[in-house]
Amino acid sequence: MNVGFLQLKPKFGAVKENVRAAKSLLKNMTDATVVLPELFNTGYLFRSKDEVERLAESVKSSYTVGEMKKVAQQQKLNLVFGIAEKKSRKFYNTSILVTSKGKVFSYQKAHLFDREKLFFTAGTGAFAVHSVDDGKIGMMVCFDWFFPEVARILALNGANVICHPSNLVLPWCQDAMRTRSVENRVFSITANRIGTEKRGNLSLTFTGHSQIVDPKGEVLAKGGERSESLKVVEINPADADDKTVTPNNDLFKDRKVALYKPLLRKPG
Amino acid sequence: MNVGFLQLKPKFGAVKENVRAAKSLLKNMTDATVVLPELFNTGYLFRSKDEVERLAESVKSSYTVGEMKKVAQQQKLNLVFGIAEKKSRKFYNTSILVTSKGKVFSYQKAHLFDREKLFFTAGTGAFAVHSVDDGKIGMMVCFDWFFPEVARILALNGANVICHPSNLVLPWCQDAMRTRSVENRVFSITANRIGTEKRGNLSLTFTGHSQIVDPKGEVLAKGGERSESLKVVEINPADADDKTVTPNNDLFKDRKVALYKPLLRKPG
Repeated sequence: MNVGFLQLKPKFGAVKENVRAAKSLLKNMTDATVVLPELFNTGYLFRSKDEVERLAESVKSSYTVGEMKKVAQQQKLNLVFGIAEKKSRKFYNTSILVTSKGKVFSYQKAHLFDREKLFFTAGTGAFAVHSVDDGKIGMMVCFDWFFPEVARILALNGANVICHPSNLVLPWCQDAMRTRSVENRVFSITANRIGTEKRGNLSLTFTGHSQIVDPKGEVLAKGGERSESLKVVEINPADADDKTVTPNNDLFKDRKVALYKPLLRKPG
Repeated sequence: MNVGFLQLKPKFGAVKENVRAAKSLLKNMTDATVVLPELFNTGYLFRSKDEVERLAESVKSSYTVGEMKKVAQQQKLNLVFGIAEKKSRKFYNTSILVTSKGKVFSYQKAHLFDREKLFFTAGTGAFAVHSVDDGKIGMMVCFDWFFPEVARILALNGANVICHPSNLVLPWCQDAMRTRSVENRVFSITANRIGTEKRGNLSLTFTGHSQIVDPKGEVLAKGGERSESLKVVEINPADADDKTVTPNNDLFKDRKVALYKPLLRKPG
């Protein structure tokens, strides 16, 4: 199974231009699962709910999803990418998976970062896993990395490849995702964006360094800090189904769930 | 509050010699909380339950605990260290905390590594937190690091300094503990041992690189790969009580416990 990331520099508000740019960078790619950044079609720094309203799309009628689905089917790709979703008058920071067979799945980001809370509603869905080609794909979005619970649940739900569209601004995620891969024995693909986005008095610089990590924490491919890039490697997703750490340790069977009840305690 | 690690090379089976060596290295130290390695007094590579039986101690009558308690009281130290514990005909891989005021607390390792399972019983206690000087100390032992649940629960229980006696042989822990500190906003002190232990046809090389990590993942002090060392730094444990990540994010309040139920699912 070929998996990769497309590291991009979206232009705020220019949905069609951003989708066209992504399609152009993908044009010679076939037979692969490729992860794009969070909110890759809209840009990140919304200043008002009106802006979100204007750029958010319903998954079913989404221009972006429609275009990406065509690419996926024509080029035998599975594509994971972030959009601003509109649903029942609410907005979600959503990751979409479109498969080479035309199926569409979505995950609404559960852990919103900073000012996203002003505009988006947190997702409350299960952390679903989708069988695609040889892989079992789970999705999480950007700041979800901060919560080890997310990757853990995806792995417990059977994911062997975690796809992670991101717009990273904190310095820790890339290292932490290596730990997420090790502690769950899964592949992880973090697709980050690059560039500085300035909007009024707001400004954020995204850290690039997208990466593909194997179940033992090795970085199989890495993007630069400032350049767009598409990198794809071949993996065997089944490598992540073996949770053996030593002859006497199975990562999941060794979990002491009877001791973990405090994890569900409500914050005081 | 001064916190540190004492990185050692224990000699298998030589309890009194190992305790003496630790006391000697600590002899000029005062007014600090110092973490020593897992099983620092016995060595690691037990070949039979008889060997464990011979070297394990009841906490109450333990020579090691008694000696360390004297040092702690005389030198105003809090000491965290690993021993083989004997209790009701069972053996535990236990971390002890002795305080400068003569109190003794213990934690029985919950996640046993590899051949430890042949000899030791896994602990089933709560992940308790102990107020010591300005710090709230939680203990975990070596392979517990692999399970993000442990550091998470200690932090949820109020720990701001996680003390982590270890005998590390895998390559990932030091990086992972930086993630543990970041994702929980806690200080962590991993005290590893060094050296190669050969016993019959068994052999293990321990990786050194003990470390003290702050709540933002910075390594405040690090040991070498092959040398014994004692390093102490001054920290403000209260820095770890502030779980603010951004003006809109509080690490613990942001946890979506309603979504985390799969964490308690029994292994299939």
